[in-house]
Amino acid sequence: MAISLSQTFLSINRRLHDDHRVLPYEKCTSIASLLGQKSCIGRNKSLEFSTRSPRIPRALSKTSEPLSSINHDFEKEIEPVKQEERCLADVWREIQGQDDWVGMLDPMDPLLRSELIRYGEMAQAAYDAFDFDPFSKYCGSCRFTRRQFFDALGMAHHGYHISRYLFATSNINLPNFFKKSRWPKVWSKNANWIGYVAVSDDEMSKRLDRRDITIAWRGTVTRLEWIADLMDFLKPISSNKIPCPDPMVKVESGFLDLYTEKDVNCRFCKFSAREQILTEVKKLLELYQDEEISITITGHSLGSALAILSAYDIVETGLNLLNDCRAVPVSVFSFSGPRVGNVRFKERMESLGVKVLRVVNVHDIVPKSPGLFFNENVSPVLMKLAEGLPWSYSHVGVELALDHTHSPFLKQTGDLTCAHNLEAHLHLLDGYHGKGRRFVLASGRDPALVNKASDFLKDHYLVPPYWRQDENKGMVRNNDGRWMQQERPILDHHHEDTHHHLKQLGQATEHYS
Amino acid sequence: MAISLSQTFLSINRRLHDDHRVLPYEKCTSIASLLGQKSCIGRNKSLEFSTRSPRIPRALSKTSEPLSSINHDFEKEIEPVKQEERCLADVWREIQGQDDWVGMLDPMDPLLRSELIRYGEMAQAAYDAFDFDPFSKYCGSCRFTRRQFFDALGMAHHGYHISRYLFATSNINLPNFFKKSRWPKVWSKNANWIGYVAVSDDEMSKRLDRRDITIAWRGTVTRLEWIADLMDFLKPISSNKIPCPDPMVKVESGFLDLYTEKDVNCRFCKFSAREQILTEVKKLLELYQDEEISITITGHSLGSALAILSAYDIVETGLNLLNDCRAVPVSVFSFSGPRVGNVRFKERMESLGVKVLRVVNVHDIVPKSPGLFFNENVSPVLMKLAEGLPWSYSHVGVELALDHTHSPFLKQTGDLTCAHNLEAHLHLLDGYHGKGRRFVLASGRDPALVNKASDFLKDHYLVPPYWRQDENKGMVRNNDGRWMQQERPILDHHHEDTHHHLKQLGQATEHYS
Repeated sequence: MAISLSQTFLSINRRLHDDHRVLPYEKCTSIASLLGQKSCIGRNKSLEFSTRSPRIPRALSKTSEPLSSINHDFEKEIEPVKQEERCLADVWREIQGQDDWVGMLDPMDPLLRSELIRYGEMAQAAYDAFDFDPFSKYCGSCRFTRRQFFDALGMAHHGYHISRYLFATSNINLPNFFKKSRWPKVWSKNANWIGYVAVSDDEMSKRLDRRDITIAWRGTVTRLEWIADLMDFLKPISSNKIPCPDPMVKVESGFLDLYTEKDVNCRFCKFSAREQILTEVKKLLELYQDEEISITITGHSLGSALAILSAYDIVETGLNLLNDCRAVPVSVFSFSGPRVGNVRFKERMESLGVKVLRVVNVHDIVPKSPGLFFNENVSPVLMKLAEGLPWSYSHVGVELALDHTHSPFLKQTGDLTCAHNLEAHLHLLDGYHGKGRRFVLASGRDPALVNKASDFLKDHYLVPPYWRQDENKGMVRNNDGRWMQQERPILDHHHEDTHHHLKQLGQATEHYS
Repeated sequence: MAISLSQTFLSINRRLHDDHRVLPYEKCTSIASLLGQKSCIGRNKSLEFSTRSPRIPRALSKTSEPLSSINHDFEKEIEPVKQEERCLADVWREIQGQDDWVGMLDPMDPLLRSELIRYGEMAQAAYDAFDFDPFSKYCGSCRFTRRQFFDALGMAHHGYHISRYLFATSNINLPNFFKKSRWPKVWSKNANWIGYVAVSDDEMSKRLDRRDITIAWRGTVTRLEWIADLMDFLKPISSNKIPCPDPMVKVESGFLDLYTEKDVNCRFCKFSAREQILTEVKKLLELYQDEEISITITGHSLGSALAILSAYDIVETGLNLLNDCRAVPVSVFSFSGPRVGNVRFKERMESLGVKVLRVVNVHDIVPKSPGLFFNENVSPVLMKLAEGLPWSYSHVGVELALDHTHSPFLKQTGDLTCAHNLEAHLHLLDGYHGKGRRFVLASGRDPALVNKASDFLKDHYLVPPYWRQDENKGMVRNNDGRWMQQERPILDHHHEDTHHHLKQLGQATEHYS
């Protein structure tokens, strides 16, 4: 096995060398991955990498060996690439979908790949930071404060700071989405932390060539029961007071409720997710109105549905139009997302210019839901006939279809939760070079991450399955020698100015006016 | 429920007040526990406690509340009791079983209770430090070096240092006892860490009024499959080269093999557990020969069998006789132990003066094994008839029978692994005051510890089940940003002088002579 995989990597590299993308073959006969995270890669330039990046090219010649014994022969210190920022500056609008990613997906554009992974990691962060443990009194909240967030997750290099945490009320009909503590005294009875709004810092903004506002929505993790909770019922988006000129634009009612419902008695969800997003984006756009800005929304699974809904909302309400009439581009990088609305919703998204790139694994059932029978794949005639039905759905945007059976690192399992796993998608992205092309890790992104919350990596890598866990489940010994759950600081709830901004948006409800 | 338990505690305290042990009732109407770990308690003295101890008396008046919200009303700073050392000095020989614990078990002697818990915690440490994870490359070893051991386990106050780690070879027929890594490159192919020898430090020795050599043997944890592995076959103890004047003294062959087998090709088990123990005890007895010394051997489950065997061996070989003809007392505090040998073994133990106190839970099946049919409970006539049978067993020593259904903290579960759990035994000890007496926590020992590796505490305490776990299963992010299992220092194997001591004992085998 070791020999055959080693040979595989050799043949992969030979193949890449013959490919139109030039690989410095003489320098890396056994390198499976040659792409630094932040390096500048034009489509016909030779690949370079920097050891400053946490993702370092590695010799993966012996895949039967444990990952920790990977050969370090090729970890030479190479000067960071100087024109890095200029490169992203050249192409960021295409990366964000200005041209609907035409010609960028096959073969896979290396910079788009690394940007997709970067945003995917921001969606993954919403999982890694979430407290899922029903025996924790903070179950359903974020394990870290806003200021600790990226540092605590080892993502300081991501170059963002969080400007707001997002919460949703569990008083809606999605029982398998919300997590509740078994503890009687809890941080909140009815709220769940559901994501965050982050802004690129000055250094990162320079590299990105714009100020990037990222909204990351948390989804569900391993369990897929929430799909069964969906009522599979489309309702007009305008029925939940989201402005829309076309009453036939409809979305799945559960997603819509999750986005718009609130609980006035809860300090965390007294504003709906929608109100939280709109006010925060408005504030940030005002703050950075003199700069180039982008809005990038990401999410996995149910978080993808929220990403698409909120992207639509931001553009439909005209929030992304600056005072000088510039329109801030709004893009969605969606992972394993379900369908959200009907054909009219899809058409409205397109006419508004909201760009959506959907990364899916062809073996994942979530992107096939809801709308298993009437969807974008049936004939236009049938679709026209089914248009009035409340279960006729259509995906939006452009799909990037991956296939987990193409990764030599992953088990050939039929486990649906594995197929749906976000870390696995990021791993698949790293190895994807285009349809029919061999799977080769581009950045050498650590495959061990796949097993963070799954048992998907082949056993011979001996990475423990489901290895992401807190020491002693958060129990600490206090000064009295007694074991207790560690107290956490109360999370920020909502800025005092939220209602002020809501008013300005014309969205204030009677309750606060 | 809250009210009734609160009332229960009140009535318990009233009852205790009426009891011959005087409780300062007027000061502690809602205190369930009034006994500091290190305090001096004569049988007719009023109870005092110290907040220096990690076990602090607490008001447990509201048991329906989470443990962290336990009322702190009675946590007053009280001067530590001055005569503490003198007290243990007065009675340590009785505590160690000089008089076979007559009159000390019913009612339960408070100092014996706290000493039993102290030694039980040293057996528990062998579990807490053991690496059970088959995905760890250190599976089967100790997670800490000798010098880190007690500190890493938060037991610095125990006042011991470890003089030797003990290993056993897995090349014997107890497949469910040994843990093996799934990793190909491991710390040892055939060895498992199986316990330690520790010595009280100067300060602790002063308190104990003697230098205490403690041997703690690891057992199995939650799984009970190893019972089925026992061949239920007695063989003469002398057949494995342990000296014994009576060839009819027999013990279970699996325990005997575990104690005497070795693997000359393994640096950790090139000496048998027996050889490791004997040489270490010999060395320590020489080192401290001018002091008062005790040897205390403890173990849980299969570790209890090893404790009894090694105690027998130390006395049978005359190792505990000092040059000045003093005999060092050898005591065993056994927890949830199976039967080890036949009636002749029991009789030999008695004639040698080895003292064994066996703490059991009446609902645990392990102390009923082996020898389910022919054991110390059948009539002497039948036992005599069965004497020659290879499955006629007898417990040794004195039994202290606890009952987990008497603890209001524990679930009324029939789960056999709960009934066998060592932490649960320590909790039961803390609440035990004698047959038919109410369950009241004496030291307030943290009930949360019960759930360290079980789901035995009642749910309303909301202590996470199985909460003892490493952060990220020991995975750490290295400087390259790659997640790997943290490297650990190689454990000490054997002192250079082991063979020298073996020779002196007349136990050297041809292989080393």
